[in-house]
Amino acid sequence: MLNTLSYRVDELKAYVTRFFTTLNVPEIDAQIAADVLVSADLRGVNSHGVIRLHTYYGSRLRKKLIDPLSPIKTLNETAATLALDGANGLGQVVAYRAMSRCIEMADTAGLAVATVRNSNHFGIAGYYAMMALPEDMIGISLTNSQPLVAATYGLKPVLGTNPIAVAIPAGEEQPYVLDMATSIVPIGRVAVYQKAGQSIPEGWGMDAAGALTDDPNKVIGGGALLPLGGPAELRGYKGYGLSLLVDLLSGVLAGAAFGKEVGNPANQGRANVGHFFAAIKIENFRPVMEFKQDMDQYLRTLKQSPKLPGHDRIYIHGEKEFELANQYLREGVPLMQEVVDSLKQAGDEIGVPFDLKPIK
Amino acid sequence: MLNTLSYRVDELKAYVTRFFTTLNVPEIDAQIAADVLVSADLRGVNSHGVIRLHTYYGSRLRKKLIDPLSPIKTLNETAATLALDGANGLGQVVAYRAMSRCIEMADTAGLAVATVRNSNHFGIAGYYAMMALPEDMIGISLTNSQPLVAATYGLKPVLGTNPIAVAIPAGEEQPYVLDMATSIVPIGRVAVYQKAGQSIPEGWGMDAAGALTDDPNKVIGGGALLPLGGPAELRGYKGYGLSLLVDLLSGVLAGAAFGKEVGNPANQGRANVGHFFAAIKIENFRPVMEFKQDMDQYLRTLKQSPKLPGHDRIYIHGEKEFELANQYLREGVPLMQEVVDSLKQAGDEIGVPFDLKPIK
Repeated sequence: MLNTLSYRVDELKAYVTRFFTTLNVPEIDAQIAADVLVSADLRGVNSHGVIRLHTYYGSRLRKKLIDPLSPIKTLNETAATLALDGANGLGQVVAYRAMSRCIEMADTAGLAVATVRNSNHFGIAGYYAMMALPEDMIGISLTNSQPLVAATYGLKPVLGTNPIAVAIPAGEEQPYVLDMATSIVPIGRVAVYQKAGQSIPEGWGMDAAGALTDDPNKVIGGGALLPLGGPAELRGYKGYGLSLLVDLLSGVLAGAAFGKEVGNPANQGRANVGHFFAAIKIENFRPVMEFKQDMDQYLRTLKQSPKLPGHDRIYIHGEKEFELANQYLREGVPLMQEVVDSLKQAGDEIGVPFDLKPIK
Repeated sequence: MLNTLSYRVDELKAYVTRFFTTLNVPEIDAQIAADVLVSADLRGVNSHGVIRLHTYYGSRLRKKLIDPLSPIKTLNETAATLALDGANGLGQVVAYRAMSRCIEMADTAGLAVATVRNSNHFGIAGYYAMMALPEDMIGISLTNSQPLVAATYGLKPVLGTNPIAVAIPAGEEQPYVLDMATSIVPIGRVAVYQKAGQSIPEGWGMDAAGALTDDPNKVIGGGALLPLGGPAELRGYKGYGLSLLVDLLSGVLAGAAFGKEVGNPANQGRANVGHFFAAIKIENFRPVMEFKQDMDQYLRTLKQSPKLPGHDRIYIHGEKEFELANQYLREGVPLMQEVVDSLKQAGDEIGVPFDLKPIK
């Protein structure tokens, strides 16, 4: 990666925490939000990390578009189900608390589902799914997001990139952690090519007239992303169906905004994002040790199976991210110069200068 | 469709029921299995309908590879979780009973999950998900299946086409019914091109050396299907991740076979297929009427949104199948001549001649 500066993880988290507390976020909540944001950079998902501290969170808090002090409201609660109103709080904090309660409930009930309405952009979906891992549970985390993706045979963005995250523990192997946008790529990936002045692989998105394009400017400026699978012939309607599914569960079931009504975090107005979380206790279905042994055996068999010519490795979902996190914990988290600049600008605006020393 | 004969739905179900009872399947179970099989043809999913009566079910019952009389065993049961052993019964019967109990439990607990080990090929996954609809619940149905799909960067089939089915009720609109293989296409789709002597769209599968091919013979004879998304550049590892997810939930969590060990229903030996079912009661999250109004509004907005040039319709998942079912209920279910021939052969083998009169 060119033009990056590396920072110590703990220092970065401490800075982001200070940033949030200065904007009236309670200390504990600020620590949660900082942990979610920096964890994205740590796992190499830099599109969802501190790059968004300024526009998605800082600006919205300053403009009172996010309310960090309103307590989350419980709309309905039973032993295994929980419907919450996030009270327009920080998405990370609302999601963390919802998933924490979901896990507590699943410990007794064997499984639990929590829906959340009236929330905000919550960062990486995988963070909350992974909260289930230390409890020997399977974690699921879904959220809707602002419209960027076209339906199959549709011309305009009508769906979000609505991610699906599922975390499943293993024994000696790393856990399985799927964390995927239901579009081919998230919009941040297209923006990376746009900034670099490069063309995107054909198939990721279309222009305003509905033609496939390799020009990132046309996708971002009036076009749309394509759902996973791409064109109908290659079954893009399955990706469209998955994106819609995520919105039906996290938007409609939760009673949040859905479809084109989900707010863009970079815009004015209440976002009313919806989330869906689930936790499943493995022990209720079979002994945890047996389960983990089978997980290890399965994941090893996959990785050891014959490779395509020119490839020497088959990855399990989450594996690359665990390796990056280990590396970045030792060597520091790399941030692009422009991200560092945006942190400096964000910090200066609220009187919390970004003064961390890069490593080396 | 060329060379098809149409049959009345009720007569077809009655014949399949008779077929199964002759093979020692109890009357009620035979009715269940017949309903699942014929429902596939009725919804236009003819790859999973009576075309498989001979090889997948009839032959296996005759060879005692499926045991239609052993009662399902409960391994563990709590208010919201259920772990079952299908006792190597007919997949349709085992799945129907598991989902029925899941729905009963969800009526009290608000949601429920049931896993099943030691089962067999269960037909269309969507059938069981749709059982939740009349109860104002969301239904989920997953199953693993024999290896046909390559992992990203992998050369050999290591995963099944492992389908995901989710059914969500609406108000005046038809329900949302997603029922998708996690490969680009199921193997039956490739077989249709093979039989017709046609080439397949490039991207669906690869040959034994790992090269993309448009030759269906090479995919079926030693090659592999590609996961949804296709190559890595277009994010086929997401489809790979979804296929793996289905197997981790329906195979590993259930304690069934998984990965390459899942039995091919056309082969000898115990299949030990695994399933995963869930039911979620909408009322526990928000009033059902509000939910259905939002569903209707969302689905209409999607269908009315601007279309791609050359297209005049955006479909909701399941919509085409509901329309076909309505048509076939009136006009009869069309079966290809070769399917009729296979029914005749299957019937003759067990002394239950397929003697239905086609319509017209």
